[in-house]
Formats: sequence, structure tokens, C-alpha cells
Amino acid sequence: MAKSKFEYVRQFEKDDSCLPNCWIVVRIDGRGFHKFSDDHKFEKPNDEGALLLMNKCAECVMNQFKDIVIAYGVSDEYSFVFRKGTTQFSRRESKLMSNLVSLFSSSYVFYWKDYIKQTALLYPPAFDARVVLYPSNNNLKDYLSWRQADCHINNLYNTCFWKLVLEGHCSNTEAEERLKGTVSSDKNELLFSQFGINYNTLDEFYRKGTILIWKKVDEEVLKVCRSKDDVEEQERVVIRSRRRVTHLHTDLIGDAFWLQNTEILEC
Amino acid sequence: MAKSKFEYVRQFEKDDSCLPNCWIVVRIDGRGFHKFSDDHKFEKPNDEGALLLMNKCAECVMNQFKDIVIAYGVSDEYSFVFRKGTTQFSRRESKLMSNLVSLFSSSYVFYWKDYIKQTALLYPPAFDARVVLYPSNNNLKDYLSWRQADCHINNLYNTCFWKLVLEGHCSNTEAEERLKGTVSSDKNELLFSQFGINYNTLDEFYRKGTILIWKKVDEEVLKVCRSKDDVEEQERVVIRSRRRVTHLHTDLIGDAFWLQNTEILEC
Amino acid sequence: MAKSKFEYVRQFEKDDSCLPNCWIVVRIDGRGFHKFSDDHKFEKPNDEGALLLMNKCAECVMNQFKDIVIAYGVSDEYSFVFRKGTTQFSRRESKLMSNLVSLFSSSYVFYWKDYIKQTALLYPPAFDARVVLYPSNNNLKDYLSWRQADCHINNLYNTCFWKLVLEGHCSNTEAEERLKGTVSSDKNELLFSQFGINYNTLDEFYRKGTILIWKKVDEEVLKVCRSKDDVEEQERVVIRSRRRVTHLHTDLIGDAFWLQNTEILEC
Amino acid sequence: MAKSKFEYVRQFEKDDSCLPNCWIVVRIDGRGFHKFSDDHKFEKPNDEGALLLMNKCAECVMNQFKDIVIAYGVSDEYSFVFRKGTTQFSRRESKLMSNLVSLFSSSYVFYWKDYIKQTALLYPPAFDARVVLYPSNNNLKDYLSWRQADCHINNLYNTCFWKLVLEGHCSNTEAEERLKGTVSSDKNELLFSQFGINYNTLDEFYRKGTILIWKKVDEEVLKVCRSKDDVEEQERVVIRSRRRVTHLHTDLIGDAFWLQNTEILEC
Repeated sequence: MAKSKFEYVRQFEKDDSCLPNCWIVVRIDGRGFHKFSDDHKFEKPNDEGALLLMNKCAECVMNQFKDIVIAYGVSDEYSFVFRKGTTQFSRRESKLMSNLVSLFSSSYVFYWKDYIKQTALLYPPAFDARVVLYPSNNNLKDYLSWRQADCHINNLYNTCFWKLVLEGHCSNTEAEERLKGTVSSDKNELLFSQFGINYNTLDEFYRKGTILIWKKVDEEVLKVCRSKDDVEEQERVVIRSRRRVTHLHTDLIGDAFWLQNTEILEC
Repeated sequence: MAKSKFEYVRQFEKDDSCLPNCWIVVRIDGRGFHKFSDDHKFEKPNDEGALLLMNKCAECVMNQFKDIVIAYGVSDEYSFVFRKGTTQFSRRESKLMSNLVSLFSSSYVFYWKDYIKQTALLYPPAFDARVVLYPSNNNLKDYLSWRQADCHINNLYNTCFWKLVLEGHCSNTEAEERLKGTVSSDKNELLFSQFGINYNTLDEFYRKGTILIWKKVDEEVLKVCRSKDDVEEQERVVIRSRRRVTHLHTDLIGDAFWLQNTEILEC
Repeated sequence: MAKSKFEYVRQFEKDDSCLPNCWIVVRIDGRGFHKFSDDHKFEKPNDEGALLLMNKCAECVMNQFKDIVIAYGVSDEYSFVFRKGTTQFSRRESKLMSNLVSLFSSSYVFYWKDYIKQTALLYPPAFDARVVLYPSNNNLKDYLSWRQADCHINNLYNTCFWKLVLEGHCSNTEAEERLKGTVSSDKNELLFSQFGINYNTLDEFYRKGTILIWKKVDEEVLKVCRSKDDVEEQERVVIRSRRRVTHLHTDLIGDAFWLQNTEILEC
Repeated sequence: MAKSKFEYVRQFEKDDSCLPNCWIVVRIDGRGFHKFSDDHKFEKPNDEGALLLMNKCAECVMNQFKDIVIAYGVSDEYSFVFRKGTTQFSRRESKLMSNLVSLFSSSYVFYWKDYIKQTALLYPPAFDARVVLYPSNNNLKDYLSWRQADCHINNLYNTCFWKLVLEGHCSNTEAEERLKGTVSSDKNELLFSQFGINYNTLDEFYRKGTILIWKKVDEEVLKVCRSKDDVEEQERVVIRSRRRVTHLHTDLIGDAFWLQNTEILEC
């Protein structure tokens, strides 16, 4: 088609392709989700439906972008890791970032009613996104460990806080005061002595966050076959090996996870 | 809160703040919208509801980001222009880009049913986004002119194409062949001679795309007043001047638009 | 020529072209020039030869890069401004920066002996460089004003400091103490009352730094002509208008400079 | 010191620190060295003095920037590799690049007369520089292999070309024609059959380029000691282990080099 004399403005676009041979992490994060959670009456400290919705959206993203080798979600954030050698969108940072956060956001609204029963969605939510590059496998593992360590720290704090508020007759301010300066062991002790809770026995779904990876699974598939004389059609059940997104709620800070899932870093 | 030994991975995040004193344009663009339009039976060449939905989403974005001084939409794309001096998100490129495209995408799903009557939304759509900086007012005007010139070129072509297909008994391939190598005047002529259509009298909504700008409007507001003796409450209608998003479908390539809306570039 | 299998490493090079339509400033700055000045016995507070050498190097740079429209030097630093529309090195940042600082540095050694009489060059000096973009004319003028304001502040301080040390019988530490917390007027007063010096009458060469711009000058050129009958050759002096680098030591913070040299910003 | 109202222009400077945990390569390259070599009558195809001068400059650079773990030079170019974890200049790209190319350039002029006997330096030379990041050890080895493969390709070509011109009675154009389309084995054959030269026995200094690395060497140092009764001073020779820049002209494409110099990649 004809080009206009205004076409020169395209030269102002910059090339933002990511350095080759680095893990590309796209992290998305809910904007103003403190208020959003309140407005939509999310259960405290964790709302199961809200977390399952996040996981659903992340799975949608992975199913569209097969070069994502692992994703990790906690609270209102999700990290997606593209394999080092991906050529998706020619590794262009803004393409990767915007497509992911866009699909995640539209999925969040699309699947809302399947996961959140207590209330309708009141207004469209927003997530921000950023891209970070990690050159080595250790850097990447440390990144994911950082997010899971954060999950632990926040969830332990929030578990204490909401116990104090919901069952301990504390105001928000009093609960905050009570927890100020405490370390992990103090918080474990508080939960146990005051509420009879052993934190380490709480559901890993809340304590560890969610890890999404690809796993080969055998699936039964209906296949239409013809008889030898080519006269009859028959349906037969056959077994096919498929790559499927698998949800895990386990520790990824130690070595065990990586030894059991070596294919993630070998991709 | 305690910091983990993994915290160092934050140093891999890069500073991506935009050069000061430049217009910041965020353009978003539907991903795979050719197929998306077919799947959702959008009317050809233009689906009024689909365009109104785009405009609604863009208005949501502007209402949340008041530093956007003008937005321009056509087909499945929208450009948002932040004023030169904005400090929104400290001018961080990924924050600006991701928040906008995320809110746009979630709004698209959220408001779908208000605009698209013929079919339910079948799956979550995605938009990509990019940021481009323009140093001077002329560069910015040329950018917007480029998009509107593109709108014209595409809409003229599509109008011809779909007339040939829907009323001219052409296959898609035949219509393509018929239009190959034609210039604007050829297409105008074709529309007029074969279909009795004067292109320039078609609705500007389709020919010009949509411009969103802020306009001061006087609005009637109910105000609760007390009588002098502080006994009675009274409601009175008062006039308040409010900044509202206004939709225009007009030429922005010529000078007239900019002379009539000088506040856009003076912000 | 044949390509090796290692050729892929070129993909790791990034595109670093500067945003179009911005002034490109390359500022270079002596590395460790405090020690360098001592080692080479530069006169305090200003060594005329050392400053003239800087100016010579800057002139060499301008003569090779004609798209530099103005340069400004003070002490051991120099700023070079490429016109907004330059396509030198396709506006590639590292090319612009490295070529300039390299030529400046080699010129510094090359011309040393023509300007520094008191001592031989003891070791090769180094300069660093950076690129900064300025979108508007006012930004550029403010950048240059910033450097000249810095020149003023530093030169006033250094003039006082070295008067106190060289004629006022102060140690370096005592001079520092004496000047701590003083404002400009205090320093002017000190110079006048204690040393009988009116700062504003000191040579502008030191107080204002050096501005290099292009000026058209008429030059006499020898031209070989032939007589009408093509028999004799004759040499004639003709006047040619040439663009030459001109050195100024004047205020560029006020409007006067820009009104007298409008061609700089119009390029 | 007082800050001026122009200070805001510093906000236009951008952060350009290199991604952590990547090898930082700074490659410098002579600008217009074809002409420069002609002007200074460099011997063809290789001028020993000119290459030794390049090596001398590179050694100066390494002695000032101890985090450079390996450098590789060929013809008028040199690559310097900073260790992955370097914090030199906070990993700021322009600082690293400009300081290196500046020191290299000034050294080139400074040491010229020690290496180039046939002619004085006629004008100041310039080098450009760029920074490239390599995430993995293999990428880095491939980068260096790429440069050495290039050295081989160019040197074989140049050796043939200049033999043809200087001894084979060819014009430049004829020599070019003669070599067009030839592969390595053709060129080896040409050298052998026409000039009796076995290319592989030519000096590695020319065929392999120069590798600079740090090696621990034992050096004799004079040390002043006192006798036990503290009366006499005595000088004694002691052995000290020092890190010194070592020049190698050997293959670095195969594994042998890296097996013999494991400390380079382990730094």
C-alpha cells in the first residue's frame, strides 16, 4: 500500500530485543490489589478461588506461549520464564511483556465467574509487568527462590496478622504492633501457643505458592480407523503422550526440585 | 521484613525510564484480530459495536491515567499520548506500557457484552503494546497523522474489498486481484461507478477513526445545602465545570484540529 | 569472505542508535586529572597552556565531525553538541562517543609539546565520555548554561583557594576551612579585601570557559588562472567564504549569545 | 557547592550499567586505518612495529584495568574482556568503553616513536569502541574464536594479495581478481606453488594474533634488611610472585588453550 509522508515517525521506534542466551523472566503484578481484594471480599489471609483464578490465567498464558518453561505464582503476582534460546517475537521485550500481561488480564476477567462465587467483578483489574534477564541457571534458580522466600515471609506474616484480627480480638493496628520486630520463630511460636496452629502443617498451596511446568502425560485419545478391507470405520482408544501444564505446590529453593525436573533447565 | 540471600537478583532489573521532555506514545494493537474478528462474526468492513467497545476501553484507560492528553483509535489499535512532562510511574517504560495494555485488555472483556450483541466472547483476546518517544510537537502531530492516514488507506481498501465480495459477487481472491495496483482515485471511482457510493460521504466514524481528548464541560450536580438556621437540609442543582473525555471523528492531519484544540500541545 | 560458525556472536551486539530529532551531547572528562595536573606541574588555579591544548583538541574533533554545531570546554572537560538531525555514524551512540573521545585523547598527546613547555608528558592521559540527549532547544541551552555556571562556581572557588594558599600563607586545609560555607558574594569580597582583586575583571578566558562555533570567514586563496588565449598561467588572490571554528570566551547563559548566533540552533 | 537552576538537565542522563554476571567485551577498532597505514608506510601485509605498538597499548590498558582477564588483538583491532563479576565503574557501559578507548588512543601516540621507526606520526589516529555482553563461557570462547578465525581468513588473504602484488607483478586489481572466489585450500596452494611458501610455517605472531593474559611470575626484588643488632642495612635479593601481562601467539579456538589457562574463565 502507498506510504504516507508521515511514515518517517517509525524511525523513532527502538529495537528492544533481549540479549541472546539469557533466561527471560516476565513478572506480572496486580495493581492496587489491596483495595481490589477488599472490594471483592477476598478471604484473608488467602482466598482459594482468587489464587486458583490466577493459576488458571497463568495456564492460559503457558498454553499460548509454549517456550515458557516454568511459571511461579504467589498472591497477585506471577513470573513466567522463557527458555534461554526462545525466538518468540524475536525476543522483543515489549512484545513479550505486553502480550503476556494482556492475555493474563483478559483471562482474569474471562474466567472470573468460574472461580469467584461470592461476588461479581466490579471493575476491570490491571496488572503491571516487567522483563528481567538472567544469564545463568543459578541466577534463575535464585530468582525463583527469591520469590518463594518472599511468599513464605509474607504468608507467615499474613497468617499471624489475620489470626490476631479475626480470632484474637485485635484491631489491625494492634496486630501490626504485636508483630513488629518479630522473626520467623517468634511468629511460629505465636501461632502455636496462641492459636494451636503448627504453621508447617498448613496447606502447601498457601505456603509454597504455585509452580507450573510442562509434563509429559499419557492421554487416551479416540482415533478413527478403517478396517483392512477399507469398508468399515472403527473408533479405537489409543494412548498419546502429550505435554501438559502441571501445577505443583512444593519447595523449589532446595536442590530436590531441580533434580526431579531436570528438563526445565535443559531446554 | 527480613531480606533473603536471593535478594541480589533484583540488581538484574534495569532502569527503563523514558527520556524527559518527550511525548510518550503507547500504542496497543490486537494480536491475531483477523481471526478474532471472524470467530466473533464482526461485520465487514467495520463492526460498529466492536469499534465502540475499543473506544470504551480507551476511555477507561484515560480516566485512570489523566496525563494522557490525546488518544487515537482505529480498527483494533489505539495510541495513547502522555504529556511531555508526565511523571506517571516515574516515566518507567514497562510500567506505563504494561498497565495500559492490561487495563485495556481487561476492560475489553469486562464491557464486551454491553457492545457486542451477536455473540458471546469465545476466548480471552490479547493486545500487544509498544512505547515510542517523540521529542517535538511536529513529530507527535506527524505520528498521529500517520495513524489517521493509515486509517484512510485501509478503510478505503476494505470498503472496496467488502463491497466487491458482499455485493459484487467476487471471491476474496478476485476482489484482491481487482484492487491490486489501484490508487485512491481508482478506488473512489470503483465505489462510485459500480456501487453508487461517494466514499467521502460515508460516516466519519469509519473514515477518520476516533480521537479522544479532554474537554471542560459544565455539569449539573446535586449539592446538599443547609438553611441559614441550620435546621433544614436542601438539595440544590449547581453547575460544575468538569474535565471529561470527548470523542471526535474528525481530521487531525490538517492544522484546523490543532488550532481548535490548542490545549493538547500546551499541557 | 567465508563466514565462520562463530559468526553468531554478532547477534549479541545491540542497536544503540540515538532517538531522532534530539540534540546529541557528548561530554568528555579527564580521568584523575587532579593527579595528572600535579604530576605535570600545571599552574594553579588555571594553566593557560593546558587549557589551550584542550581547545586545540576540541578544534581537531570539530574539524573531523562537521555536524558538531557548538562545543564548550572548561577545565579538563569538553562538551560537543551534534545537530538534531545528524546522521553521523547512523546516530549510533557508541560510535559517536568512542570516536570523539579517542580522537580527543590522541590529539592531546600529539599536540602536547606545542602547548606545554614546562614538562614532557610523563604518561598517557585518559578521558571518559558519555552521551546525553536533549529534545528541545531550551534543554540544550540549559545544559550549556549548567556547564558554564559550574565553570563560574569552580573558578571563583579555585581563584580564592589558590590566592589563600599561594599568597595568603594558608595550608590547603586552612584555605578549605576559610572557604567552607561561603557564598559567591563572600568570595568576591574576600578576593577584593584581602588581595585587591575584582573577580569580574579577571580574564574571561578563565571565567567563562571556551565556546567553539562555526563562523563564515572570508579567506584569501591563491587561484591559478589562464589568460584568455590559454597561453599564460597566472596566480590571483581571490576571496573565498569558509566555515571556520571560532573560539569565544563569553557568556552563553543570557539571551544575547543566542540572539547573535542564531545559526547554531537553526541547523 | 551551590546548585544552579540548570541542574535539572542531569536527569536526561541515562543509567547504562551492564547486565550483571555477563562477560563484558570492549572491542576497539582503528578508524580509517587503511589510509592511516598507507600514510605511515606500514609494511604489507603486516607491519611488525605497528602490531607491537598495538600490543603495547593493550598492555597499558590491562595494567590500569586489572579486571580485564584476557585481551585479543589482530590488525588494528583489540578486544578486552572484563571478568563477569567486575564492578569497575559500577559496570557502566560508557565509562568502561570510553576510558579504555581513550587510554588506548593516547598510548598509541605516546609510544609511537618507540615502535615505528620509519616515519613520524603525521596526525592523531582514532579508534572506535563498542561493548558486547556474553552470558556464558561458551559464548565468550566463541567470540574470541570468531576474532581469531577472522584473523586467519584476513591474514591468509592478505598474504596472498601482497605476494601477488609485491612479487607476482600483479596490479592491485589483478590480485583481487586472482583471489576472487578462492577458498582457503586454493590460497594455500597458490602460496606454495607460486611462491614456495608453506603458510602454516609463517610466524604465529601474524597468523594467530596476540593474546594477553595474566600470569604469575617469580620476580627478583631487592629488599632492604637490617642485621639483628639493627646496626647495618643490607640489601638482599628475594623472590616475589607477581601477576604480569603475558603475550601469547597461539591457537585459542581449540580446547588446549582453555585447558592450559583455566584461571581465565574461573575468575
